[in-house]
Amino acid sequence: MDESPIIDLQSDAFFMGQALREARKAYVATEVPIGAVVVREGKVIARAWNQVETLKDATAHAEMLALTAAQQALGDWRLEKCTLYVTKEPCPMCAGAIVHCRPERVVFGCPDAKAGAAGGWINLLDSNPPLNHRCEITSGVLGEECLALLQGFFREAREKKKAERLNPPMDSGG
Amino acid sequence: MDESPIIDLQSDAFFMGQALREARKAYVATEVPIGAVVVREGKVIARAWNQVETLKDATAHAEMLALTAAQQALGDWRLEKCTLYVTKEPCPMCAGAIVHCRPERVVFGCPDAKAGAAGGWINLLDSNPPLNHRCEITSGVLGEECLALLQGFFREAREKKKAERLNPPMDSGG
Repeated sequence: MDESPIIDLQSDAFFMGQALREARKAYVATEVPIGAVVVREGKVIARAWNQVETLKDATAHAEMLALTAAQQALGDWRLEKCTLYVTKEPCPMCAGAIVHCRPERVVFGCPDAKAGAAGGWINLLDSNPPLNHRCEITSGVLGEECLALLQGFFREAREKKKAERLNPPMDSGG
Repeated sequence: MDESPIIDLQSDAFFMGQALREARKAYVATEVPIGAVVVREGKVIARAWNQVETLKDATAHAEMLALTAAQQALGDWRLEKCTLYVTKEPCPMCAGAIVHCRPERVVFGCPDAKAGAAGGWINLLDSNPPLNHRCEITSGVLGEECLALLQGFFREAREKKKAERLNPPMDSGG
């Protein structure tokens, strides 16, 4: 049987698939479905999904949790030789955190033209100077799957809201 | 005795004094001396100092820790009716976090013209649209004291480094 060698692009798709697995965990928990993994030398060292509602913490984005977990795994705040995979383009908070933690690469799925901070709205990852670190950016890896998951989540939320308006929950009191 | 009423400006100075107390704790711990407090209806509900080295977490800025602690104190990620006091202008990561947590006001001590994200380099706190929240910003409260603490820290660090170059630590082995 002919087995093709694993190439870089396949690796990006594989690891983005791991980030998508995390995003699906967020979906199940009724969180905006975004997932992230941090990879070092071909190995996943941290995984996380968006937990804003679960933790009642607006800073608990998938990227923030994955970066912090990766730092703990390495015992260092410098994420040397690391790549962050995340299903959606990072927001300004997460992009700012990425600059502080210094991974070499950031790979994301779907872009966020409205508020993305890796080139969508602004680019904090490639603004050196004045910031102290510049990341290599790869976008659009499994982008359609990442976007479809988000769109499905928001569509479902809208439909649920609409159904509640039409059939408000009854008071079950006697 | 004539006691003047407490006015808003005095309150800002008082709470910035509390943030400076936190910054001094960072100094003692050999951390870049930045401190923050979150105030709600005249009461401090969270205090924190920069702990990047202590926690080996590049995202552990004073603002991030104070915002997270305030959310825990309120049991909600929306910091309604809250003011964040921080001794230095927030970086892009912290400004992004502030937008997510939605305090009404941000008061800072010294500006950061190089990389500040509340007007110094960019302004993420007043960019609505596209971000979903706009904060009232007050700058320069106890600004000279906040700056002097930072300058003293970096001067001391440089002098220590210079002394080590001139007198490298001896190997104490027998």
